[in-house]
Amino acid sequence: MTAEGVPAPPDASRLTAGEARALFRRGIVAPSAGWADGYTQANLLIVPADLAYDVLLFAQRNPKACPVLDVLDAGQVTGRLLPDGDIRTDAARYVVYCDGVPVERPTDLLEVWQEDLVTFIIGCSFTFESALRAGGIPIAHIDQGVNVPMFRTDRRCRPAGSLAGPLVVSMRPVSPDRIADAVRITSRYPAVHGAPVHVGDPAALGIADLGSPDFGDPVDLPRGTVPVFWACGVTPQAAVMESRPGLAIGHAPGHMLVTDARDSDYLVP
Amino acid sequence: MTAEGVPAPPDASRLTAGEARALFRRGIVAPSAGWADGYTQANLLIVPADLAYDVLLFAQRNPKACPVLDVLDAGQVTGRLLPDGDIRTDAARYVVYCDGVPVERPTDLLEVWQEDLVTFIIGCSFTFESALRAGGIPIAHIDQGVNVPMFRTDRRCRPAGSLAGPLVVSMRPVSPDRIADAVRITSRYPAVHGAPVHVGDPAALGIADLGSPDFGDPVDLPRGTVPVFWACGVTPQAAVMESRPGLAIGHAPGHMLVTDARDSDYLVP
Repeated sequence: MTAEGVPAPPDASRLTAGEARALFRRGIVAPSAGWADGYTQANLLIVPADLAYDVLLFAQRNPKACPVLDVLDAGQVTGRLLPDGDIRTDAARYVVYCDGVPVERPTDLLEVWQEDLVTFIIGCSFTFESALRAGGIPIAHIDQGVNVPMFRTDRRCRPAGSLAGPLVVSMRPVSPDRIADAVRITSRYPAVHGAPVHVGDPAALGIADLGSPDFGDPVDLPRGTVPVFWACGVTPQAAVMESRPGLAIGHAPGHMLVTDARDSDYLVP
Repeated sequence: MTAEGVPAPPDASRLTAGEARALFRRGIVAPSAGWADGYTQANLLIVPADLAYDVLLFAQRNPKACPVLDVLDAGQVTGRLLPDGDIRTDAARYVVYCDGVPVERPTDLLEVWQEDLVTFIIGCSFTFESALRAGGIPIAHIDQGVNVPMFRTDRRCRPAGSLAGPLVVSMRPVSPDRIADAVRITSRYPAVHGAPVHVGDPAALGIADLGSPDFGDPVDLPRGTVPVFWACGVTPQAAVMESRPGLAIGHAPGHMLVTDARDSDYLVP
């Protein structure tokens, strides 16, 4: 966990969402896994208004990867999921893409903000991680203190207008006797990626090496566990990288927006 | 059940979706409740491309009322939910709105079609009616052979761009000892309106008279039953009527598009 000028709090899990956003706003830079327990963390994609329909349609056509939790109007920097917050400062780190190429990883967007930018707040698999842990299923990347590993697959998303790209997945190792439980638990969160898209064979998704994730960090697979793959909210950023719009902005993978929504809001009973 | 030139089949429930669409295409005009059992029926909203973002955002912001199942690109008349079908002919009846006013109720759109029209296929509560009946909960409007009653409420939808309007609900009477079951069963279909928005008091939703629905037909409340209200896919048409875009097209309420999706596709296990 690196920080820029501001020390990370000793127990980030007990923060409220607003407190977490305030700390990121003040300059803490750290992956947000485990912060503000119970509050819903989210992926970001921010694009000029003329690309907004393509993004929203891409999300509608690929809902497991891109579950939209809210959309801010053009130029709007706050909203119901981040009351008193500011989308330009409240994530720990962002990635600015020009023509699909990541050109900058700033800790705020105050310099690059434009009045025509539309913000998409997209669900994140961190939401069901608490439920998995509560169900006694360990989360390797949390236990190992690293960012979740994410991989481009050879599965194509349904394209939308100018946007096309591969499905990106996050991977968590699960013991074979708990796979059914992991499926059951995550199925109950259909609005935040839901059930796994694949269990077991990285090669079946076109993933050559589990030790070299495309985003995030590698994790050690505990003995006897099987890799389980869930659709990942970094998918729209992979579409940006492939489709090369003039400007798009994402969060830095693993450095999520902590929202005022509760994980339980997305639980189907 | 009225027909124009083509007799209705004796057992419409056993048709496949493709057979049902073919009959509507050939000219049968009838409410589609009970047709093609197990296949997912859907609401339609068709708008010029310059209104498409507002519609998609309105749907995203009001997902209980407007669960989007698919979107066809501008000018496209068929898609994965209606293979070999034609969106201009395959619903039994349509409503054409000019400046928010219903000006025509044609049985096809061949005359009014434009190449810039974008079709939104939106989930319908008919999807969970089979599950309710399978659970032993009778559906009054089916038993009484009429269209489901639908009401404008005094609850406002979240607006999106140029679109604003009230929540529209469908009403089904349920016996008090089965309300919990009706909630449980419909909760499992979050992608097609999900759990009720209100149980019991029409006045709490601003509904003055259950005997005078705004869309569909009145039903007799069987003795001892309580009115239960679900968000309804006619909601975007109510927004069109209030927001008055130059052109918009819907299905005639109750006269749905029968799609090749299966009701079970939308069940959360």
